[in-house]
Amino acid sequence: MDEAENKKRSHRGNVSRFFEPRRIAIIGSFKEGFFGGYVIVKSLMNSGYGGRIYPVNPAYKEVHGLKVYPSIKEVPKTVDLVFILINARSVVKVVRECAQSGVRAFIVVSDGFAERDLKGKHLQKELLSYAREHGLRIIGPNTAGVVNTANGFNPCPYEAGYYKFRHGPVAVCAQTGMINPQAYPYPLLRFGVSKICDFGNKCDLDECDMLEYLEDDPDTQVISMYLETICDGKKFLGTAKRVASQKPVLILKSGRTREGAKASVSHTGGLAVDDKIFEATCNQAGILRIDTFAELFEIPKVFASQPLPEGNRLGIVTFTGGIAVLAIDEAAKYQLDIPSLGTKTADFLDAIFPGLGTMPVDIGPVMAAVKEAFDRYPKILDAVMSDKNVNALFNVLWANYTGDIIERYIEAYEGIKNRYRKPVVTWIYGPSAQSTSELAGRLEDRGFPVFTRPETAIKALGLAWRHASTRYGART
Amino acid sequence: MDEAENKKRSHRGNVSRFFEPRRIAIIGSFKEGFFGGYVIVKSLMNSGYGGRIYPVNPAYKEVHGLKVYPSIKEVPKTVDLVFILINARSVVKVVRECAQSGVRAFIVVSDGFAERDLKGKHLQKELLSYAREHGLRIIGPNTAGVVNTANGFNPCPYEAGYYKFRHGPVAVCAQTGMINPQAYPYPLLRFGVSKICDFGNKCDLDECDMLEYLEDDPDTQVISMYLETICDGKKFLGTAKRVASQKPVLILKSGRTREGAKASVSHTGGLAVDDKIFEATCNQAGILRIDTFAELFEIPKVFASQPLPEGNRLGIVTFTGGIAVLAIDEAAKYQLDIPSLGTKTADFLDAIFPGLGTMPVDIGPVMAAVKEAFDRYPKILDAVMSDKNVNALFNVLWANYTGDIIERYIEAYEGIKNRYRKPVVTWIYGPSAQSTSELAGRLEDRGFPVFTRPETAIKALGLAWRHASTRYGART
Repeated sequence: MDEAENKKRSHRGNVSRFFEPRRIAIIGSFKEGFFGGYVIVKSLMNSGYGGRIYPVNPAYKEVHGLKVYPSIKEVPKTVDLVFILINARSVVKVVRECAQSGVRAFIVVSDGFAERDLKGKHLQKELLSYAREHGLRIIGPNTAGVVNTANGFNPCPYEAGYYKFRHGPVAVCAQTGMINPQAYPYPLLRFGVSKICDFGNKCDLDECDMLEYLEDDPDTQVISMYLETICDGKKFLGTAKRVASQKPVLILKSGRTREGAKASVSHTGGLAVDDKIFEATCNQAGILRIDTFAELFEIPKVFASQPLPEGNRLGIVTFTGGIAVLAIDEAAKYQLDIPSLGTKTADFLDAIFPGLGTMPVDIGPVMAAVKEAFDRYPKILDAVMSDKNVNALFNVLWANYTGDIIERYIEAYEGIKNRYRKPVVTWIYGPSAQSTSELAGRLEDRGFPVFTRPETAIKALGLAWRHASTRYGART
Repeated sequence: MDEAENKKRSHRGNVSRFFEPRRIAIIGSFKEGFFGGYVIVKSLMNSGYGGRIYPVNPAYKEVHGLKVYPSIKEVPKTVDLVFILINARSVVKVVRECAQSGVRAFIVVSDGFAERDLKGKHLQKELLSYAREHGLRIIGPNTAGVVNTANGFNPCPYEAGYYKFRHGPVAVCAQTGMINPQAYPYPLLRFGVSKICDFGNKCDLDECDMLEYLEDDPDTQVISMYLETICDGKKFLGTAKRVASQKPVLILKSGRTREGAKASVSHTGGLAVDDKIFEATCNQAGILRIDTFAELFEIPKVFASQPLPEGNRLGIVTFTGGIAVLAIDEAAKYQLDIPSLGTKTADFLDAIFPGLGTMPVDIGPVMAAVKEAFDRYPKILDAVMSDKNVNALFNVLWANYTGDIIERYIEAYEGIKNRYRKPVVTWIYGPSAQSTSELAGRLEDRGFPVFTRPETAIKALGLAWRHASTRYGART
C-alpha cells in the first residue's frame, strides 16, 4: 500500500469516528427541554444505538437513568467522539481537556462562533488552531450533528418526535441544520437514508471529507448536499470528480446571486464562491446541480430505487395531454428525446383504442370513452415499457376519489417490476389528496418513486441520464 | 355609449352565458359511471345550481329524478347553454338543431376533433364555420367545461367526489382539463376560486374572451392561466395589457422548447408561438409568467389574500439561516432587496437576544438558548412588521412535533393582522407533516398564505412586487 493510500485510509478512519463511535461523551446541559444534552441521550436511547453513552456535567447526577460524570477525566474509558453543547467561550478549554484524555473527534453543537460576530470568529479560529495542532477532527461549530441509520446512531440535539429511520441508500449533507431530524419528516422518505451530516460552520470537516467518506460507504448509493461555501475549490473539483464518477452527487448551492453570496458568508462565516466558477466546476466534475430545497430530498429517490437509463429516449404515458406537453418542455432541458413507438407497440395500442399508439400515450380518451378498456391498462403499460425505443418512462396517473381504479395501477406496476431494466418515475394527480397519497405510498412501497410535481419527476430522470452519461459516456 | 363599448358589452354578454346560464340542456349519455351526462346532472344538483336542467337523449326517460327529453326541440324553453357529449361525427348536426331552437352557447365536451386526427380537424373546422355563420359561441371541443362558484354552477362531467367550492377571488383557466374539479383537490385551496374554464381545443372561445370577461367579473381579483398556444398574438397583447393593468394575470405557457411546441400543437390542435416572442409579449403586457404547474394554484394565493407591497424591501424572519440564504438568492431574481432594520427595531431585538437585531432575523439561536425568550415571538414579529424599512415579509416557521409552540405563532399572526398594509408569506417546516399542515391551515384560515416551498413563497412576493410596479409604477 503506498503512502497516499495509507493517508486516505487514515483520513477516512478519522471521519468514521463521527458515524461509528463505540463510546461517546456528551458535555452540556441535561435539563429537560426540546434542545440539548437531555434530547441527545433520549434520542440515542430510542434510536437503537448500541454504543456506550457518557453524559458529562458536574451539576447532574443522572439523566434518563444514565450516570452523569462530573468531568471528561472521570469517564472510565477513552471515548471516540464528544458532543459539546456549552457556551462558545468555554469550548476551547473543554476540547483541550478532552484531547488530554485522548479524545480525537468532536461535534461542536454550540453556536456563537463565526456566524455570530467578530468575537465568535476569533473563538472559532482558536478552536481550529488547537485542533490542527493536536490532530483533532471537528464537525461544526453551530451544527445539529449527524445520523447513521446503519447502526441506529441518531444523536439529534433537538426533539424531533421520532427517533428511528428507514435505512436506505441516500446520504444527505448540508451547511445547515435544515436536514436534521427535527427539520424534516424523514419517516415519509420511503427509500430511506444512510447518513445525515450538518457541517455547521464547517471549520474543519468539510464537503471533501464527507465526499471521501461516502465514496467508500457501502450503505450510500447517492449523495445529496446543500452548500453555501466551498472550502477549497481545487480539492473539491478533484474529489467530487472522482466520487461523481462512481456515485451520483447532487448539489444545491446557495449564494448564486451577489446578495445571496453575501448572506451565505455571514450565515456560517465561510468564503463566497463565484457562481460561474462553481457552475463550471460542476460541469467538469459531473456534479448534478439541483435548484430547490425540496429537490435535495426528492431527486435522490430516482437513484435510490431505479436503474440508470441506458439511453435518452423518454416514453410518456399519461391521462392528460397538458402535462405531457409540460413534460416534453422539461425533458428537452436534459436532452431527453421523446421517441416514436415501435410499430409492434403502436399497432397493439391502436387496436385497444384508435390513436392510443402515438407517443405520448394518452389514456384519457380511452377512459372517457370506455371504462372497460381501462382494464387493459396493465397490458398498455407493459407494451410501452417493452418497446425498444423507450429507455425510461414518465408515467402520469389519475387517482380517482373512490380509489377503485388504484388496484389496476398496482397490478400494472407489479407486472413491470423486475421485468425491465429501465427507470420509471410517476406523478399522480386527482381530486382527492387522500387517494393520491395512498397510491403514492403503495407504489413507493413497491420500489417505484413518486414525485410531488411533474417537473421534478422529469428532472430526476434528466439527472439520471446525465449521471449515466458521465459514468459510462453518452450513448444517445 | 359608443359602438365599441356596445360591442364589448354584447361580447361579454355572450361569454357570461357560459357561467351564468339560467337554463341548460345536456345532450349525451346518462348511463351511470364516472364520466358523462349522468355526472354533470349529479354534480349540478349537488353544487347548488339554481337554474333549470334539461337532459336530452331519446334512449332515457329519467336521470336523477329529472325528466329526459327526446330531443332539444321538445325542451319547453329556450336554453342559454347546451352541453354536448356525443360522438364527434354527430356534433355539428346536433349543434344545428339546437341553433334552430334558439341556442347560442355550447360547451362541446366531446373529443375526437383537431387533437385526434385529420378527420377530426375537418370536423372541428366545420363546427366552427357553422358557429361563426350563425353567431354561436363554443367552448371546446375536447373540454371538461367550466365552474362558477358564485352561483354554484359546477357542471363537471367527471366524478370528482366533491361538488362545492369555497367561493374566492382566483379564476383558473387552462388549455387542459387538468384544472377541472376531477383533477385538482380544490377543497384544499383555502382562499377559494371564482371561475374555472377549460378551453379545450379552443376553436372559438379563447384566452382573450376569458380575459375580457374576467376583467369585469367582480368576483375575480386574480387570473391564473395555462396556455399551450395563443390564438391571436396582437389581440392577446392588447387585451392582456389592459387587463393586467387592473388585475394580476399569471400565465404558465408550455411549448417553450421546440419539442414542447410541437407537442402542444398536436395536443389541442393549435398553432405554436415562438417562446421569445411570447416572453416579450409578457414583458410588454405586464403578464406575470409562472413556470410550473403547481404555481398555477399556489402563486395566486398571495394576490387573493395580501395587499400589494408598496416597495421592494423584503424582511425575513426565520428559524434557520440556510433557508434565509436560499430566499435571498430567490429574492434577487425579482429585484427584492433585503433591507437593514431600523435602529429602533434593531435595538429592541438585540435587547431580547444579542444579534437578533440583524436582518435576516434568525430566531433559531434564541430558541436553542432560552425557550422563554420565544414567548416574546409575537413582539419580535410585530417589531419587524412595524419597521419602515420593511415592505413585505417572508416568515419561516418551525412547527415542532407536539405543536405546543403553534399557539404562540397564532398569537403573533393575530397581532399583526389588519395592523399593517404589507404582504406576508409563510413557509413552515418541521419533523411532523401533521403539525406543519395543521399550522398551515390555521394561518390560512386567518388570511395568511402558506407556501409548500420557500422558493415559491418568495416568487409569489416577487410577482406581487412586479404587478405593483406595473400598476402603480416602480417605487423602489
